[in-house]
Amino acid sequence: MPAGELLHESSEAEGEVRVWAQIKTEVKRDAESEPALASYLYSTILSHSSLERSLSFHLGNKLCSSTLLSTLLYDLFLDAFSSDPSLRAATVADLCAVHERDPACVSFSHCLLNYKGFLACQAQRVAHKLWSQSRKPLALALQSRIADVFSVDIHPAARIGKGVLLDHATGVVVGETAVIGNNVSILHHVTLGGTGKVGGDRHPKIGDGVLIGAGATILGNVKIGEGAKIGAGSVVLIDVPPWTTAVGNPARLVGGKERPSKHEDVPGESMDHTSFMSEWSDYII
Amino acid sequence: MPAGELLHESSEAEGEVRVWAQIKTEVKRDAESEPALASYLYSTILSHSSLERSLSFHLGNKLCSSTLLSTLLYDLFLDAFSSDPSLRAATVADLCAVHERDPACVSFSHCLLNYKGFLACQAQRVAHKLWSQSRKPLALALQSRIADVFSVDIHPAARIGKGVLLDHATGVVVGETAVIGNNVSILHHVTLGGTGKVGGDRHPKIGDGVLIGAGATILGNVKIGEGAKIGAGSVVLIDVPPWTTAVGNPARLVGGKERPSKHEDVPGESMDHTSFMSEWSDYII
Amino acid sequence: MPAGELLHESSEAEGEVRVWAQIKTEVKRDAESEPALASYLYSTILSHSSLERSLSFHLGNKLCSSTLLSTLLYDLFLDAFSSDPSLRAATVADLCAVHERDPACVSFSHCLLNYKGFLACQAQRVAHKLWSQSRKPLALALQSRIADVFSVDIHPAARIGKGVLLDHATGVVVGETAVIGNNVSILHHVTLGGTGKVGGDRHPKIGDGVLIGAGATILGNVKIGEGAKIGAGSVVLIDVPPWTTAVGNPARLVGGKERPSKHEDVPGESMDHTSFMSEWSDYII
Amino acid sequence: MPAGELLHESSEAEGEVRVWAQIKTEVKRDAESEPALASYLYSTILSHSSLERSLSFHLGNKLCSSTLLSTLLYDLFLDAFSSDPSLRAATVADLCAVHERDPACVSFSHCLLNYKGFLACQAQRVAHKLWSQSRKPLALALQSRIADVFSVDIHPAARIGKGVLLDHATGVVVGETAVIGNNVSILHHVTLGGTGKVGGDRHPKIGDGVLIGAGATILGNVKIGEGAKIGAGSVVLIDVPPWTTAVGNPARLVGGKERPSKHEDVPGESMDHTSFMSEWSDYII
Amino acid sequence: MPAGELLHESSEAEGEVRVWAQIKTEVKRDAESEPALASYLYSTILSHSSLERSLSFHLGNKLCSSTLLSTLLYDLFLDAFSSDPSLRAATVADLCAVHERDPACVSFSHCLLNYKGFLACQAQRVAHKLWSQSRKPLALALQSRIADVFSVDIHPAARIGKGVLLDHATGVVVGETAVIGNNVSILHHVTLGGTGKVGGDRHPKIGDGVLIGAGATILGNVKIGEGAKIGAGSVVLIDVPPWTTAVGNPARLVGGKERPSKHEDVPGESMDHTSFMSEWSDYII
Amino acid sequence: MPAGELLHESSEAEGEVRVWAQIKTEVKRDAESEPALASYLYSTILSHSSLERSLSFHLGNKLCSSTLLSTLLYDLFLDAFSSDPSLRAATVADLCAVHERDPACVSFSHCLLNYKGFLACQAQRVAHKLWSQSRKPLALALQSRIADVFSVDIHPAARIGKGVLLDHATGVVVGETAVIGNNVSILHHVTLGGTGKVGGDRHPKIGDGVLIGAGATILGNVKIGEGAKIGAGSVVLIDVPPWTTAVGNPARLVGGKERPSKHEDVPGESMDHTSFMSEWSDYII
Repeated sequence: MPAGELLHESSEAEGEVRVWAQIKTEVKRDAESEPALASYLYSTILSHSSLERSLSFHLGNKLCSSTLLSTLLYDLFLDAFSSDPSLRAATVADLCAVHERDPACVSFSHCLLNYKGFLACQAQRVAHKLWSQSRKPLALALQSRIADVFSVDIHPAARIGKGVLLDHATGVVVGETAVIGNNVSILHHVTLGGTGKVGGDRHPKIGDGVLIGAGATILGNVKIGEGAKIGAGSVVLIDVPPWTTAVGNPARLVGGKERPSKHEDVPGESMDHTSFMSEWSDYII
Repeated sequence: MPAGELLHESSEAEGEVRVWAQIKTEVKRDAESEPALASYLYSTILSHSSLERSLSFHLGNKLCSSTLLSTLLYDLFLDAFSSDPSLRAATVADLCAVHERDPACVSFSHCLLNYKGFLACQAQRVAHKLWSQSRKPLALALQSRIADVFSVDIHPAARIGKGVLLDHATGVVVGETAVIGNNVSILHHVTLGGTGKVGGDRHPKIGDGVLIGAGATILGNVKIGEGAKIGAGSVVLIDVPPWTTAVGNPARLVGGKERPSKHEDVPGESMDHTSFMSEWSDYII
Repeated sequence: MPAGELLHESSEAEGEVRVWAQIKTEVKRDAESEPALASYLYSTILSHSSLERSLSFHLGNKLCSSTLLSTLLYDLFLDAFSSDPSLRAATVADLCAVHERDPACVSFSHCLLNYKGFLACQAQRVAHKLWSQSRKPLALALQSRIADVFSVDIHPAARIGKGVLLDHATGVVVGETAVIGNNVSILHHVTLGGTGKVGGDRHPKIGDGVLIGAGATILGNVKIGEGAKIGAGSVVLIDVPPWTTAVGNPARLVGGKERPSKHEDVPGESMDHTSFMSEWSDYII
Repeated sequence: MPAGELLHESSEAEGEVRVWAQIKTEVKRDAESEPALASYLYSTILSHSSLERSLSFHLGNKLCSSTLLSTLLYDLFLDAFSSDPSLRAATVADLCAVHERDPACVSFSHCLLNYKGFLACQAQRVAHKLWSQSRKPLALALQSRIADVFSVDIHPAARIGKGVLLDHATGVVVGETAVIGNNVSILHHVTLGGTGKVGGDRHPKIGDGVLIGAGATILGNVKIGEGAKIGAGSVVLIDVPPWTTAVGNPARLVGGKERPSKHEDVPGESMDHTSFMSEWSDYII
Repeated sequence: MPAGELLHESSEAEGEVRVWAQIKTEVKRDAESEPALASYLYSTILSHSSLERSLSFHLGNKLCSSTLLSTLLYDLFLDAFSSDPSLRAATVADLCAVHERDPACVSFSHCLLNYKGFLACQAQRVAHKLWSQSRKPLALALQSRIADVFSVDIHPAARIGKGVLLDHATGVVVGETAVIGNNVSILHHVTLGGTGKVGGDRHPKIGDGVLIGAGATILGNVKIGEGAKIGAGSVVLIDVPPWTTAVGNPARLVGGKERPSKHEDVPGESMDHTSFMSEWSDYII
Repeated sequence: MPAGELLHESSEAEGEVRVWAQIKTEVKRDAESEPALASYLYSTILSHSSLERSLSFHLGNKLCSSTLLSTLLYDLFLDAFSSDPSLRAATVADLCAVHERDPACVSFSHCLLNYKGFLACQAQRVAHKLWSQSRKPLALALQSRIADVFSVDIHPAARIGKGVLLDHATGVVVGETAVIGNNVSILHHVTLGGTGKVGGDRHPKIGDGVLIGAGATILGNVKIGEGAKIGAGSVVLIDVPPWTTAVGNPARLVGGKERPSKHEDVPGESMDHTSFMSEWSDYII
């Protein structure tokens, strides 16, 4: 392993330790101030010796059912998170992304305990790992539980980067051959869907730093370029160039197809949903 | 307390008693005609001595999980509803709103037992009360349970008026600084969202009597004027004047920006989703 | 009973037997290769002597709550499926539809176990039967459980044909007087809604073979003609002629109102979501 | 089938109908007077169409665990009781025995709902049937659940007659080759045990009409003659003649070994635990 | 109310406050030292504002089943304990009795959390209250749950004094007309049983300060005099004089029938099980 | 570590592997022949990679409650069994003991799945380990759960040898300072109790190879010598010499106090409960 990777791994591990320490501090304070919640906070967080144990416990209890027991799921998640540092690094990156980008997020523990998009995403990464190991029936069973419990339906074959925010998350649908880059933010009701009943590579590819607004529908093997922004409620069926903004149904580029306006910030990180408004010529209220 | 308020309180209490008596009558009839449902009807309604006990029991059982026990939630809800008459008055006003406005609603008990929008709204009001008392971690835990169970994600800081109908409700998202007036009707998949990652007052303010159609997305600290109507699937990013209708993505005012058509009925109460159709010039099928 | 019907019933029963045998074969293989899932597969499928018993068990466990016990629901479903061959035939037709049309569906058992749209649809058919027998409170309680668990909200009075695919399904809302034909495919977030607070016949009628894209909203007692296609995110408020494609918000016909383009394949079966793209003149990215 | 048997079956079926009607009447009255219990009474009794369905539901819910689901057990019990009239006849005979012999038993429903000895006995009879069909692992799993839940540990191979009362029942242990006759009454903590580690016929044979007092221990392949009475706390290791009374540790016959006193009533029915007292010469307080 | 009673009530209330404060102190220390148990300790004790709430929660969760929900039982217990100071005084007296008499009891919270005899006794007192209010079906349902969960079967009509210790408690059976005095200690497997199938007053009356050893069986309407001691495994069928010791099967008085030995300490409090040994002439190992 | 211990450890590990392989073979056969039980067998045994995982899962699910979650207990048991080979060796020795000594035991898996005495004993050993590590509140909570679920109440401080059979087990009570040797067999309702309210060493010490019959009560810091036999229902208050038999209440030695009969087999292994009968002079029926 090259030194760079080692360094990277080590700094990721440090980040994990730091975030976990921060979470414990937050939750201890909350448990003291709110006895009614203390039992929940102890069972879910404070009784565990590591972030991966706490997360595995939480996911196991959220996703279990009368026929898929919590102990089985707990084991499954713990095994995956313990053996794969990249899963843990992605978890930490997602926690940081939510904390930084969502002004309603008051703490890391707020996200870990309560964000269904965050939890769905961590569970999907484990399902993805199972899928890659050809444990497909188990991966699909997990997908089904995530879809039932969180109303987030992401195929286990889909590839998701790090530092991803699924905000609110209800109704998100992501197809089998979709790819989501790093530092992407996706609001609720967003669809990354296919085009028909033929298999093969048929779902969107979302570049790094993209922001996709609530209710946007992106269909087919189209490419949403790095740093692009997709307005809420847009319907996108063809490629969107990097650093541009597509809005409307059917979607058009702000600034026009020929010379679309380009922004410089990373929308997946800045979370600016509406500053293009004045340029959106059709908006005529 | 001024006489007026006393009178008001007393008439609200009377309304509560009347609605509860009506619910018991309905449910007794149903329990007799449908033995398979009688156990559920007795445990949820007929075994309780008041509407607030029945509702607290129902919410406690709906929202509990393996780590947040039903008894804890029951206690929490009962404490809130028992001590705050305004919460109970809002419950009764919502029951009446659903019963009056939704032709599919066959009885008060139909709403109390089955409407996830109604139940999510009552639970959010308790979460809001906790938030106002600075019991934020508990309020956020409730929000999370409501979002998991009902797929309705309303921040506990959001303020919601009385006589509100959340019809079908799946996918409704309401942000931290949103305000919803009295006698508003909101369909499923409606978003009252923010504009970015900066905190502060950043969500829509919905006036009294507004109707918001299915899948409409309203973003930013914009004002939807009293009695306005937002068409299904609309994307609204700026203010909408009172008593006007906004439709489309991007939304425009029916009748035009300069001289928008004005209606006289209260759309949040009349629930007229489509009568503007003929004036919507672009609608060209 | 005429010979034709007898023949039909007999071939339906044969199809049921064949599909059930196929499901058992698939699941036995999966149970052997994945011991972690074997318990779930045995309890849900392999321990049962027929498809109707397996499905009743699965629905009973998915839809039960602390106040509506699994044994009660199991009994209810088993009674309905056992006594009504047309319910079983619809189940088999739906299984075949999903298997054929969704390239992400790897097997019949994948659908039976994991597709919330499929499961919601089977449960709704039982609720519809109860509604027809005037067991309305029970039918409405089922609707409520389906809406909570699967985020699929279909009124028990709605009539649904055979060979229906509800893909992903989260957020689907179908009103009381809606009718859905045979071989229809409906994506998630689709609304077949009403127009106001007046009762009566007020919801869409969807012809055979129709395809409705993700997030489409169809409101009012409008007729979507046989073989029509509704684009993702469309808002449809008036009739759509057979074999045409409506897109956009507000929706317009591809090819124009006067001479709309007509396709020849059955979109509900071909699942072609996007081939109309080049003809959609406004799509200008 | 000879006429006599037919007659017998028909009168047993009539008894079943009469007892079930009586139970429903009792429970309806209780549900009306005690709303807090009505849900339980409806789910367990009033929502069912027959005694066998009610009993199967009750046993399924009592004996289920997180790994042995109530629906599975319900199915198992219902299948057994539905297909075997002799099981149902034994249930009715036991209900009558409890009602008649235990002055603390206020009604048939009191026994059906609350007597763990009665419930354990009905479940054991089903386990015995499974054992006879060579479904031994399932029979043993049932035995284990009965032992956990009711603290009554009866081997599924043991044969139990009709009209049996297991009063209080906690701690009753009955071995593999034990036989219990008709109209026997057995108090709690009674052991019908074996003698060592060698297999074969090694447990007691209890004649018709026997009464065995609390805490009595009977070991080995000994014969307790018809109508015999075993005093509380006795330890019996050899045969006891019919219509005699054995008391003490080690047990001796009241009246002496050579000319034991004989009673004329049936102690299993008269439940007379103490009238032998004056004859028990050693009893010297 | 005479001053004496007032004083008494007030000192009982003070005792309750003191014991509750002590319990909270103990449990806080345990929660800090044992994070794995903290969730349980918070939910069961630390999140509650009073002993009666904590006890009601604990009993509700212990005794609930799939058909008798924890919220219902919690309500029932809380209602009883809140409205009846004598129930609370008995609870406190029992806590003190266990703490003082059982050397294995390390703290008040140890008893409150873990002693099935203590918990069964508190629940029986509530059942007794319901019985006295003619809510017999509910009282009997409670008895049944206590018998299933704790293997302690005490008829709700039985009257139990204060300061009672049921040590280990498994298998204790107490009949309908039994009376247990104050400061009595009863070991496991003890039976206070009846004599036959005739109703009426037919169970033992246990005087103040009595000690009954493990496995003792006392049958019939006999009187166990104040301060008497019943040896382990004894079978008692007639009266036992005050301050004497009965041992054996059949039981005899230590020291002989005519001039039985008398002790001076209160055996129910001193818990001396074996000091009579040397006087027990038959004991000849 | 001396070579001998290493060898011993290695042979114990081999025994563990062999027994686990045998269990899997047995259970696979049962799962194939009994589909109704297959789900239970897979979840409890076949899905696990080792005996300690299977046992931890089984105990976690048996002993969990609504306030002590299965995942927590599973973790606790797995941690103990994984880290302590002597716990695993004791488990294997107990499995062999049951299999060899109880003719009703048909297989190792029969014991692992169904014997409450076996399961209680394994759980107690983990509680004992926690007690030794000064994790007393957790150890006592486990004791309480074992007492509730299995009606077996063994103080976590008690020391239990290997190769122990608790047959039937209901009602077994073992006090804090009791010691149980290797290859001991103890029937149900057996008490190893204390003598009063003074702490310190106050419970029986049971030598290797002892057999204690059903319902025997042994009180005080007495020594039951190696290879002794205690008859069913005996009450023992003083020492019993090795290789002798004590019977009766009060117990006496078979053969007389001065020259008691001595046997040569190991009664804890031979399980001979009754061969002393002819020598028991008082046994006069």
